[in-house]
Amino acid sequence: MAVYSSSGTLLVIGLGLLGGSVLRAAREAELYGQFLGWDAKAEVMREGRAQGVIDNADHDLNRLAPQANLIVIAVPVLAVSEVFEKLHEAGALDRYITDVASVKASIIDAARQAAGEMPAKFVPAHPIAGSEQSGLAAAKADLFRAHKVIVTPSGDGDADALAYVSGFWQALGADVVSMDAETHDKILASTSHLPHVLAYVLVSTLLSQPDVDSLFEFAAGGFRDFSRIASSDPTMWHDILLANKHAVIAAIDRFDTELQATRRLIEQSDSAALFKLLNDAKAARDTRVVSQRSADAV
Amino acid sequence: MAVYSSSGTLLVIGLGLLGGSVLRAAREAELYGQFLGWDAKAEVMREGRAQGVIDNADHDLNRLAPQANLIVIAVPVLAVSEVFEKLHEAGALDRYITDVASVKASIIDAARQAAGEMPAKFVPAHPIAGSEQSGLAAAKADLFRAHKVIVTPSGDGDADALAYVSGFWQALGADVVSMDAETHDKILASTSHLPHVLAYVLVSTLLSQPDVDSLFEFAAGGFRDFSRIASSDPTMWHDILLANKHAVIAAIDRFDTELQATRRLIEQSDSAALFKLLNDAKAARDTRVVSQRSADAV
Repeated sequence: MAVYSSSGTLLVIGLGLLGGSVLRAAREAELYGQFLGWDAKAEVMREGRAQGVIDNADHDLNRLAPQANLIVIAVPVLAVSEVFEKLHEAGALDRYITDVASVKASIIDAARQAAGEMPAKFVPAHPIAGSEQSGLAAAKADLFRAHKVIVTPSGDGDADALAYVSGFWQALGADVVSMDAETHDKILASTSHLPHVLAYVLVSTLLSQPDVDSLFEFAAGGFRDFSRIASSDPTMWHDILLANKHAVIAAIDRFDTELQATRRLIEQSDSAALFKLLNDAKAARDTRVVSQRSADAV
Repeated sequence: MAVYSSSGTLLVIGLGLLGGSVLRAAREAELYGQFLGWDAKAEVMREGRAQGVIDNADHDLNRLAPQANLIVIAVPVLAVSEVFEKLHEAGALDRYITDVASVKASIIDAARQAAGEMPAKFVPAHPIAGSEQSGLAAAKADLFRAHKVIVTPSGDGDADALAYVSGFWQALGADVVSMDAETHDKILASTSHLPHVLAYVLVSTLLSQPDVDSLFEFAAGGFRDFSRIASSDPTMWHDILLANKHAVIAAIDRFDTELQATRRLIEQSDSAALFKLLNDAKAARDTRVVSQRSADAV
């Protein structure tokens, strides 16, 4: 198995919060000798060089990709397909490849379409770490430390690649767990994508009311915390919601069924059943939601 | 106007997070000479005395209430009615009275019913401050500092009482604003009661799924922040939702209309409209939600 070494090269495609944090963390862990970056925006590549996050950048992936031992794809979900096409064109689909997208099945489809088959050394990954902040300026070396990274290797993938990519994420401090892509997408639809939809829709509901100024003026701490994730990057979430459409819609529908049932309890003043619902939810929140660092969001 | 003085007495009825914080803050500001407390639970009154939060307690409001210059009612919403009846029985409805409930119209009704008319020196109040923690142990002297307290004086109230009670809250560090009870209840239904319903329902939705263990294991930071308020006191929220039933149901319905519209955008892959919704919500969250201390919740 190829090991990370000071003669190796890491290429990160997409220099946002996640991509930038991968670079900062891999630099701190001294996993490679050379750090390359690509971004759709030239000014972000300049910023990456100026901040010492990358050694070199190039708008042409044909020149960058062949140098890399490991390629980390960290662009918005709907831009991943084009990246795989460019890597194919650059003859670089034989490198170790991983990604950071919050959806996995659609990413695997994109890779399959670009390459004609699943690239053997591509190990899809989703770090359960992030922030409502976005962009290279928010990147930090410890973003992945003590956080889960879910890998969703395809059945026909390369065992060496799985070990290499898992080891890479572990070297950044993450706890790596493995599951199939469909399970990942279904779980995350409930635990991450749905809460984001609810936060965006809550803010949107307030915006649609005539007394919107009073509403925001008297918004309490609960509203602030609840709506924090509505500050997340709209492009990123637009892509996630569309890429994981079916699981997201199923999660919305499950939530709506429960919301309507709760509405009926309130309307009918069903005191006992309402109290049980609130009490059970509190008990579950208190005992099941493990305390982690409060900064992580995605 | 009667001023707060070292010969005066403050009585707080209900020694939870809010009632305990009122006592700690009033002690720190040295507004009174004597601090009395009543709670439905004898052990909480003992705890209050042991912690030096109150000087004396009594299970019989007939003995406590007549001593007070100001009475602060801080019991769960649906218990307020009984408190007013006891104050009536104790002949203490002529004292300055305020409360801390998150709903106001139903509290005013309860006072009217107990007294036959709105007690002239009762100035209903709602401190927009709190925490998902509850109980006397979580009480703190600075809970109200730099937070809004909404007072909803009735038209036939006593101007002296409005000044006295407003001054009291200001002396605890709060910014006092005034509005009518119906406006308060409608605004809070949207900005506080609705987010609490959504948080409880989200946790409840996850609990109803067969893969509940995996769901909570992979719950990310967004879920944690979003669901934090589902850790709030179930009795308190049961009471608020029932007492403000009509405004809460209207808020749920507005939210649901927006949720269904968003679901359609996702289902139809209406990329432009979905992006606009997310982008507008982020812009509003970023610019309109003022940064306050993150600990406050209600």
